[in-house]
Amino acid sequence: MAGLKRAPKTRPPIRRVGLVVKPSEERARRLARRVIRHLEERGLEVLLDCESFKLLQNGPGIARDRIAHEVDLVVTLGGDGTFLSAARHAGGGAPVLGINAGRLGFLAEATLGDALRLIDEALAGEAPIESRHLLDVTLRRRGEVSGPFHVLNDLVVNKSAIARIIHLTVSIGGELLTRYRADGLILATPTGSTAYNLSAGGPIVHPSIDALALTPICPHTLSNRPIVIPGSSEIEITLESTGKDVYLTLDGQEGFPLELGDRVLARKSRKSFGLVRNRHRRYGELLRSKLGWGEPFEK
Amino acid sequence: MAGLKRAPKTRPPIRRVGLVVKPSEERARRLARRVIRHLEERGLEVLLDCESFKLLQNGPGIARDRIAHEVDLVVTLGGDGTFLSAARHAGGGAPVLGINAGRLGFLAEATLGDALRLIDEALAGEAPIESRHLLDVTLRRRGEVSGPFHVLNDLVVNKSAIARIIHLTVSIGGELLTRYRADGLILATPTGSTAYNLSAGGPIVHPSIDALALTPICPHTLSNRPIVIPGSSEIEITLESTGKDVYLTLDGQEGFPLELGDRVLARKSRKSFGLVRNRHRRYGELLRSKLGWGEPFEK
Amino acid sequence: MAGLKRAPKTRPPIRRVGLVVKPSEERARRLARRVIRHLEERGLEVLLDCESFKLLQNGPGIARDRIAHEVDLVVTLGGDGTFLSAARHAGGGAPVLGINAGRLGFLAEATLGDALRLIDEALAGEAPIESRHLLDVTLRRRGEVSGPFHVLNDLVVNKSAIARIIHLTVSIGGELLTRYRADGLILATPTGSTAYNLSAGGPIVHPSIDALALTPICPHTLSNRPIVIPGSSEIEITLESTGKDVYLTLDGQEGFPLELGDRVLARKSRKSFGLVRNRHRRYGELLRSKLGWGEPFEK
Amino acid sequence: MAGLKRAPKTRPPIRRVGLVVKPSEERARRLARRVIRHLEERGLEVLLDCESFKLLQNGPGIARDRIAHEVDLVVTLGGDGTFLSAARHAGGGAPVLGINAGRLGFLAEATLGDALRLIDEALAGEAPIESRHLLDVTLRRRGEVSGPFHVLNDLVVNKSAIARIIHLTVSIGGELLTRYRADGLILATPTGSTAYNLSAGGPIVHPSIDALALTPICPHTLSNRPIVIPGSSEIEITLESTGKDVYLTLDGQEGFPLELGDRVLARKSRKSFGLVRNRHRRYGELLRSKLGWGEPFEK
Repeated sequence: MAGLKRAPKTRPPIRRVGLVVKPSEERARRLARRVIRHLEERGLEVLLDCESFKLLQNGPGIARDRIAHEVDLVVTLGGDGTFLSAARHAGGGAPVLGINAGRLGFLAEATLGDALRLIDEALAGEAPIESRHLLDVTLRRRGEVSGPFHVLNDLVVNKSAIARIIHLTVSIGGELLTRYRADGLILATPTGSTAYNLSAGGPIVHPSIDALALTPICPHTLSNRPIVIPGSSEIEITLESTGKDVYLTLDGQEGFPLELGDRVLARKSRKSFGLVRNRHRRYGELLRSKLGWGEPFEK
Repeated sequence: MAGLKRAPKTRPPIRRVGLVVKPSEERARRLARRVIRHLEERGLEVLLDCESFKLLQNGPGIARDRIAHEVDLVVTLGGDGTFLSAARHAGGGAPVLGINAGRLGFLAEATLGDALRLIDEALAGEAPIESRHLLDVTLRRRGEVSGPFHVLNDLVVNKSAIARIIHLTVSIGGELLTRYRADGLILATPTGSTAYNLSAGGPIVHPSIDALALTPICPHTLSNRPIVIPGSSEIEITLESTGKDVYLTLDGQEGFPLELGDRVLARKSRKSFGLVRNRHRRYGELLRSKLGWGEPFEK
Repeated sequence: MAGLKRAPKTRPPIRRVGLVVKPSEERARRLARRVIRHLEERGLEVLLDCESFKLLQNGPGIARDRIAHEVDLVVTLGGDGTFLSAARHAGGGAPVLGINAGRLGFLAEATLGDALRLIDEALAGEAPIESRHLLDVTLRRRGEVSGPFHVLNDLVVNKSAIARIIHLTVSIGGELLTRYRADGLILATPTGSTAYNLSAGGPIVHPSIDALALTPICPHTLSNRPIVIPGSSEIEITLESTGKDVYLTLDGQEGFPLELGDRVLARKSRKSFGLVRNRHRRYGELLRSKLGWGEPFEK
Repeated sequence: MAGLKRAPKTRPPIRRVGLVVKPSEERARRLARRVIRHLEERGLEVLLDCESFKLLQNGPGIARDRIAHEVDLVVTLGGDGTFLSAARHAGGGAPVLGINAGRLGFLAEATLGDALRLIDEALAGEAPIESRHLLDVTLRRRGEVSGPFHVLNDLVVNKSAIARIIHLTVSIGGELLTRYRADGLILATPTGSTAYNLSAGGPIVHPSIDALALTPICPHTLSNRPIVIPGSSEIEITLESTGKDVYLTLDGQEGFPLELGDRVLARKSRKSFGLVRNRHRRYGELLRSKLGWGEPFEK
């Protein structure tokens, strides 16, 4: 299927591998020790991010948002959340391979059982690397600008449990698109389309498409529908109602309280990142096994 | 259509009218003075709820949750929110007539323009009175019980903006129905089915049906669908995940933070209340004008 | 849960059992022979419907739409379709027990494995019998009336594959509800709510509720939503566009071509029928196992 | 917004204009005579398609599927259907401008009132021309191949009113995507995403995105969701169930009965066509005015 780029012959040799480990996951920690030994036996230098370093006391710690820029390959051990925390800062850096300590994830391509095999394929340049877009998000409040922050899955503007409905205006390329009265709004990349976007009724968007899904959460207006907009769009979301208990959340990991009149701007990052794929996994299967999507093939 | 009961001949004469006024609404306050004069000219006693009393300094103030039990007719001036705040405590008490200061509401049956006419019809026993069910809600935490609270529209268990997905188990009559992994869950009466329930994808349920709609908010599982359950069900919702930033909200007006293991119980109140209907308004029209539901009749 | 009526002590003894067998299903035919032997050994008289009679050459054949009125218990062997074909004519007649030759159905309560056990429970008066509503449907074309026809699941008005969108007006109790521009419209009983209604986006309606679901198929207007209306409604659906390639279908089994101006009337049958329940099966489980509804209980 | 290409300076001068007129539309015929006069006064040659020729007896008639290849600009007078009938054969040919005799369409960019003004802008090279993708569709039955046919909006495989659910397998680039059990399946271009796709619950896809929406019609499996796939995909849809009363429909205009095992192949046409845009119309406005999409801007 389109969008899958086989590893080019000219990819530089891998000498340094960064490791990001989910601390609360005992299986991830155990696997981490095996992976470190495995890599060191092959003469590779292993670097850990700070949090993993504290955990495993092995080598110098690097900030998680810098690690992809200091190594030739990043391996995450945990789940989709651990992958996200490293990958959304990996634009222009090393490709990222996710190992899942629990159930197979959408982003974490390998399970504990096939972790070493997939690492070896990545080291040998045999694993396909898929280019995924990131979003740069900035927040404008009166004269001030915060960010850019990086997003791999989605940015969400939504209200807290007891707050009232919120009003948002969305412009694309400076042209008004529409207004929403809703619990919130999701702007999802294709990668993120199978995450929160799907729960809110948004469409699955194949990761190789240059597009973004804009999906309201519990819209007040019955005629509202998700819309898929060009990936190159410059999107501006303005909070038109009082921002009491309204938040901007990035990849479900970072949250910022919003105020009336705040503008959230999003555009495609100039630099994408490489997701190391498990070549034995197909997109259709992934949707079926992770989402129960579609029809079971056995009757 | 079913469920509409014409005023019986034997209804007791109306001597005392309770008035509930939305304080922030200037038009409501102005109308309130006209309504008071109008009623007093007809020899009726007018009682105000405490908040309205402070506002208008006219007559003794009664707690809003008691007013329907002290008078023969309640008139609310404001919007659907003002109506809800009086009506959800009106089980077994006087019927409630809602006047809308702004746009026509679902519950507030009259606009400013036809307020006096509709009040006169109610006084003359000419306005149809529709019986609407209320829910009694109790919250059980370890040994302790809070409530019962009364609900006319819905009870909502949902998470705050930045909290993670929540896990809920729902039992009906002691029998496990299902588990939800979602942003939240709505249990709506037919009256409340056209409110938040509809935004979350739930069905419209005609107010005369003895049923409740159970609708998940952004369910994690694609196969989830709203279900309509018997109105006489005893429903128990248990919070199975950590209750960090999870709330129980009643009619969008009262909120309670929940904890892991909390059980929310809901059952039909033994006493319903009477909604004073505008006999010139039809249910189909209401859906079309308020929701843009269905097809416009002109091309 | 509500709606389940335990077998009353006073139920008349079962002397004659009617059998309806799906002819194309080899497993159903084989089971039929065992069931006949099983019943005859217990001194019961076994009657077959005409189609089954041709198949099995055993006893006198009775028309399928009469069989419930000639016996004390009907047993269907096949699937939900076989059950429907007998049950929708069973209003006021004997209760019906469905045995499923294939996967467990929504209506057929027993599998091949537990067929004899469930039959014995029904004979002993130990199986709960649930009362289910039927609809009487008539078709009015100019002066002429066809019907009444009986429906257990649903009536569907829809267009053929290549026909254009159709226009329908729906009235309830003589009062206009709304107009639809759509591929079609489904009027489903609670029993039928988990059939075609669900595919078209309608809600699950618990079988004990006295209500009907009205769900458009591919509505042209985005703001359309399913509505649940009182079970006692007199519904009139009028075809407002040319009826080229438009059909009325009853329980997915009988079809009638419609013409411009045709009116389809539906109302609850005065006589319900008894569905013999498998007391070991719960409604929540049924939804989960048949529909994959809700959340799996194992993580 | 992306996807809108201003008219390049080097566009060849327009000398011949093709006219396609909806015959059943009196207003379209009247306007046609004015347009012909208007164009001839400017020294342009006007050609009509055969059907329009019979109607207006003016100049030689050209087959509708050839007209875009014989002229420098096509003008359609009718509605979206008339536009579709010319534009889907216009790949690699002249750009097409649609005039709407009735309500403003999605494709027909001008109303009767501004028809001449927009024609003049197109002649002067001042109207933006947007490139739209077409699909080439072929049908393979055993050894034989029919087509390619051209599609601008969508191809639909669906069953007739009384037929049973159909089974379809979809592959992309030779790799199995999923199987559907449904009433049918829609494959829509971005242009067609706001047509039938939307009624079936599919997402709006902005016309400048290189993608296709794949949306099941009344899927049997609750977990099914629309998916947006790359525009460059080679899609193969195989009918796995008996093809009794199953049809392939192209742009809602051409229909072909299907048989068990038939394979429908679709891929992007090598040649796109140019849609002449009304530069005074914005995409967001179009969605709001045509679909009632989003939130009204006035309260």
